[in-house]
Amino acid sequence: MNSSKFYEALGYEFQDPSLLEQALTHSSFVNEDRKKGISDNERLEFLGDAVFDAVISERLYKDSVRFSEGRLTRIRARVVCERSLAECALKLGVGEHLYLGRGEERSGGRTRQSLIADAMEAIIGAVYLDGGWEAATEFVLRIFDPVIEEARAGRLRMDYKTELQELLQIHGSVEIHYQMDREEGPDHDKVFYMSIWSQGKRLGEGSGKSKKEAEQAAAKQALEQLKANHK
Amino acid sequence: MNSSKFYEALGYEFQDPSLLEQALTHSSFVNEDRKKGISDNERLEFLGDAVFDAVISERLYKDSVRFSEGRLTRIRARVVCERSLAECALKLGVGEHLYLGRGEERSGGRTRQSLIADAMEAIIGAVYLDGGWEAATEFVLRIFDPVIEEARAGRLRMDYKTELQELLQIHGSVEIHYQMDREEGPDHDKVFYMSIWSQGKRLGEGSGKSKKEAEQAAAKQALEQLKANHK
Repeated sequence: MNSSKFYEALGYEFQDPSLLEQALTHSSFVNEDRKKGISDNERLEFLGDAVFDAVISERLYKDSVRFSEGRLTRIRARVVCERSLAECALKLGVGEHLYLGRGEERSGGRTRQSLIADAMEAIIGAVYLDGGWEAATEFVLRIFDPVIEEARAGRLRMDYKTELQELLQIHGSVEIHYQMDREEGPDHDKVFYMSIWSQGKRLGEGSGKSKKEAEQAAAKQALEQLKANHK
Repeated sequence: MNSSKFYEALGYEFQDPSLLEQALTHSSFVNEDRKKGISDNERLEFLGDAVFDAVISERLYKDSVRFSEGRLTRIRARVVCERSLAECALKLGVGEHLYLGRGEERSGGRTRQSLIADAMEAIIGAVYLDGGWEAATEFVLRIFDPVIEEARAGRLRMDYKTELQELLQIHGSVEIHYQMDREEGPDHDKVFYMSIWSQGKRLGEGSGKSKKEAEQAAAKQALEQLKANHK
């Protein structure tokens, strides 16, 4: 996808295009050459994450007037999550336009869900700074309205951790905890190994480039094994 | 505190005063007489929670330009928490103006931290619906700016769960988990009993009218015991 197509897909024209550049800049790119004086997208992600949550919350509040707070919260969790952010970002072509360091590039960062989801949040933060609340609301809803509809209709899968928790707690409260088994590799290229435990039993394990990713992988494995055992 | 003083303390004049009424209405009040056709504040709390987070995030983003995303996140957690919400709500006199059911009134609901914090979030949601993003930003910052300053200066205590986690993880990753031991009482007046475990050891226990409250109480006890042991 070339850049003009990408801008068209985004559907928002930045008054300050450097904000979009920053939103697409992964820390690995900045770390490789600190002299360039550019900033990575982590602070924008911090802001965009909160703006995203607020926009989705308002939409759900206004459009689902009969839903209880509990139901709204469950629907929101299916929209405001790494998976839905990454899926929408992939459709826009965010992955292809990221600025990555060479190490991150080699290890497949361009297609890594957490990295793309973070960039999507950063873009939302950038739109908010550039155009204000109304612009951010329009931007988010244009991209995420189909996801909201899916979630409201109950057709959207939640993330693995939530799904596992809900499955285990069908018959009452069950304690689940995640444990980090080890981490490997240098700081800029770490792999985390996590396992899930419940009532003294190891339910699954997984690895990933962040603790969150490793937890999701472990929850996915636990879900698969639980489902296989109940067939 | 009489009502006119309360409105003055809030510092925001509602175009639709019924939104403020709703924000002050606890579910226990509605449950006692469903025929009145009034709504409780839970959906407003859902919305206000997200708006609050976004407003605080923007303020931190813009005013702390040299802080990393990690540091911003830690500061935000000290501002966007039940304790700071409840403290600000108490100063405004929110507790005295809540509509509570008789049972909740008798069991001290008017001074319960979680209940007051929820109402504060609901008021933020009401201001947002009534006056839009700018009004909500002004409202939140006028009330919470001193808290933000305290948090940024590192003078604000975090909540007990976070404090415990940070204390235990000084020497590397340590797994902590919370377990519900039991719940007692009827649905509208439940008490939850939680305990905290780490590496097979019970660190503390506590009870409360919500799981969150019981976890905080358990974390507080664990912190006190850990600190006493290290004296």
